[in-house]
Amino acid sequence: MLHKNYGINENGHLTLCGADTVMLAKKYGTPLYLMDETLVRERMRMYRKATEKYFGNGSGIHYASKALSCKEMYRIAADEHVNVDVVSIGELYTAKAAGYPLDHVCFHGNNKTDEDIESALAVGVGEFMVDSFEELRALDTIAGRMGKVQRIMLRITPNIDPHTQKAISTGELDSKFGTPISTGQAEKLTELALSLDHVVLEGFHSHIGSQTFESEPFIEQAEVMLEFTADMKKKLGFEASKVNLGGGFGVAYTESDPRVDYVENIAAIGKEIERICKKYSLKKPAIFMEPGRSIVADAGITLYTVGSVKEIEGVRTYVSVDGGMTDNPRYALYGSKYTALIANKASELKTLNCTIAGRCCESGDMIGENMLIQPAERGDILAVLVTGAYNYSMASNYNRVPRPAMVFVRDGSDRLVVRRESFEDLYRNDI
Amino acid sequence: MLHKNYGINENGHLTLCGADTVMLAKKYGTPLYLMDETLVRERMRMYRKATEKYFGNGSGIHYASKALSCKEMYRIAADEHVNVDVVSIGELYTAKAAGYPLDHVCFHGNNKTDEDIESALAVGVGEFMVDSFEELRALDTIAGRMGKVQRIMLRITPNIDPHTQKAISTGELDSKFGTPISTGQAEKLTELALSLDHVVLEGFHSHIGSQTFESEPFIEQAEVMLEFTADMKKKLGFEASKVNLGGGFGVAYTESDPRVDYVENIAAIGKEIERICKKYSLKKPAIFMEPGRSIVADAGITLYTVGSVKEIEGVRTYVSVDGGMTDNPRYALYGSKYTALIANKASELKTLNCTIAGRCCESGDMIGENMLIQPAERGDILAVLVTGAYNYSMASNYNRVPRPAMVFVRDGSDRLVVRRESFEDLYRNDI
Repeated sequence: MLHKNYGINENGHLTLCGADTVMLAKKYGTPLYLMDETLVRERMRMYRKATEKYFGNGSGIHYASKALSCKEMYRIAADEHVNVDVVSIGELYTAKAAGYPLDHVCFHGNNKTDEDIESALAVGVGEFMVDSFEELRALDTIAGRMGKVQRIMLRITPNIDPHTQKAISTGELDSKFGTPISTGQAEKLTELALSLDHVVLEGFHSHIGSQTFESEPFIEQAEVMLEFTADMKKKLGFEASKVNLGGGFGVAYTESDPRVDYVENIAAIGKEIERICKKYSLKKPAIFMEPGRSIVADAGITLYTVGSVKEIEGVRTYVSVDGGMTDNPRYALYGSKYTALIANKASELKTLNCTIAGRCCESGDMIGENMLIQPAERGDILAVLVTGAYNYSMASNYNRVPRPAMVFVRDGSDRLVVRRESFEDLYRNDI
Repeated sequence: MLHKNYGINENGHLTLCGADTVMLAKKYGTPLYLMDETLVRERMRMYRKATEKYFGNGSGIHYASKALSCKEMYRIAADEHVNVDVVSIGELYTAKAAGYPLDHVCFHGNNKTDEDIESALAVGVGEFMVDSFEELRALDTIAGRMGKVQRIMLRITPNIDPHTQKAISTGELDSKFGTPISTGQAEKLTELALSLDHVVLEGFHSHIGSQTFESEPFIEQAEVMLEFTADMKKKLGFEASKVNLGGGFGVAYTESDPRVDYVENIAAIGKEIERICKKYSLKKPAIFMEPGRSIVADAGITLYTVGSVKEIEGVRTYVSVDGGMTDNPRYALYGSKYTALIANKASELKTLNCTIAGRCCESGDMIGENMLIQPAERGDILAVLVTGAYNYSMASNYNRVPRPAMVFVRDGSDRLVVRRESFEDLYRNDI
């Protein structure tokens, strides 16, 4: 099995953290998102402890909740003493509704509107990750009007290539995110931040992109960030107390993807940060990471029911399921690869090479091509593995298909965490 | 202007069907979907009358409501005496909630579940477009159990290349849709349909894909479909009373896209159908088309507010707006091209070559690259044209961003048709 939380039980059924997925499909219906809560908690704890230990006092993580945002995830983060990052008022209000302590929230986004800024100030977030001159000025003005002073970090662009796919790479000079160091604009933004009355600058943030399987890009990034920090100390007398490296490590979606030892890599980065701070005579700031995918991705499985199997002789076989790009648009968007199997035939040999197609009236609606699964027929339960990140959060109602329910599994028990959308939900806002 | 319903008024503001878009942005907020109702009605009427006239008695269209599905669209279709096609129970129930006469609905989809079939039979749809052997058997069984007899069409694959992009091409042999003629499976499906007690076969359906700018692919398709119809008459004694060619014509998204005279093309297809029927000694069946995009696309405009303008020297300028792939994922999915302008500076020269970026924490979140617009700054209203099709219907809550409101404009008045999603809507189903 691809990851150790996936297994096969005595009935030949796929299990998640010991729970029988075929039984869960029967109990909750399909399509269904399953999450292994134990793994989510383990990962949060591992990241928190490793960053505390290897990055030094005050360091830690923010769970990047855009990977999977629902009330229960914020409750778990609170329970595991993990900060979260939100990228919208929608995520912030979800955290609030879950009772998450909002002073542990940092607020991201390349385009915060005046209304967003006002809403976040009103409920009170820990930090704004300020992305642009426009945002910085608007934030200072609105905070002033509201009689508030807001802690901020500046998102800057270090110009690092994380060797990942373009759509999820964010740290290059050519990015909609942040303010570049190399053009001198990041320095100007720092100067402006220090001159304003209603913001308190704490440090700098950057993000080099998702699915990074090595420590090297993070070390390269830390070097650039800490050099900039030292530079700002020298030029503007500002000593950053925090540096946020964004992101986390990659996750294996298929057997051919690399595996990462997270703790080992964090230790390696910590050692280099030590060295870099010495090199620039910097007092080591608290260092943060923002893992999202690597906390939730392999905790997830999506279950579908097979509806038809079309063998087009000499061409290919299409296996159609009752979900698709509506609950997982990652193949349609990026050609992302997944691992799948027939959950009720998990111990049988995978002998069917097929295209797994979704139910949408769109040819591009696929879970994947050239996928090897057990022979399938109408009524079988198809499981797609490693769907915990950016599946539910990117889901749509294209074709007016309701979004699936989500069930968390832990210690042999299962519980509904997000209800299946009803048909009424689909036209609730139609007049 | 790209289409005749777009204009510029005396204030230099972009207008839709005469209505000032800048005023509408102020009144309803952004992002905002606008629809020109007059154009939607004109197009429905044009298609209906042209198919009635040139395809003969009983011919007509089904509005492919997946292009834009909301209660008001079904009300307008009913008012214009236009049939609709739905691709899911969600669309069917929306039509029902709008009071649309369901005997004028045909029900599509490559993977209808048993629950779907039961739901559609329970409310009573005009026709099922049966896609596979599995569906046909399930439909007959369930209809039998419910004591019903259902009118059906068989979706078959004619193996036509519509010269369109792969993701929206559906008529080739290698397709998840329909049952192929060339492998003999379509004949077997016809035979099976004729042998069952709880379905009544009316004819055949196929679809060659979207964005077809010529009549030739439809004529080629009609030839294959009518040859198959003649063949079934000869072999099985079945005379189809209906043949559905699916789809409609293409729409220009940019100045460089071709323009189509819809009526002229329908006339040309009608003439050829006449000839083909004579050739095969066929009594001409009623011929249907299923336009979606060409009824709603150019009726739509999306309005955004600009949040930041980042000029990265020597690289490019990013203009960030308060929407993006959440309300229009077509650039992220297909690299679709759009035309944009600053609505409050519509009469100024377009001198800014830029990338229009969305607000999502994802580099791939763009409306387009290399777009020419008027010089922009925070607070400007950016308008993207031709967004009436597959924008609202494909919208997501990625990053927990609420979906925009939709306003219909007609005869100088505007009215809300879909309410803006509230933040509460976003976590309504979270437990």
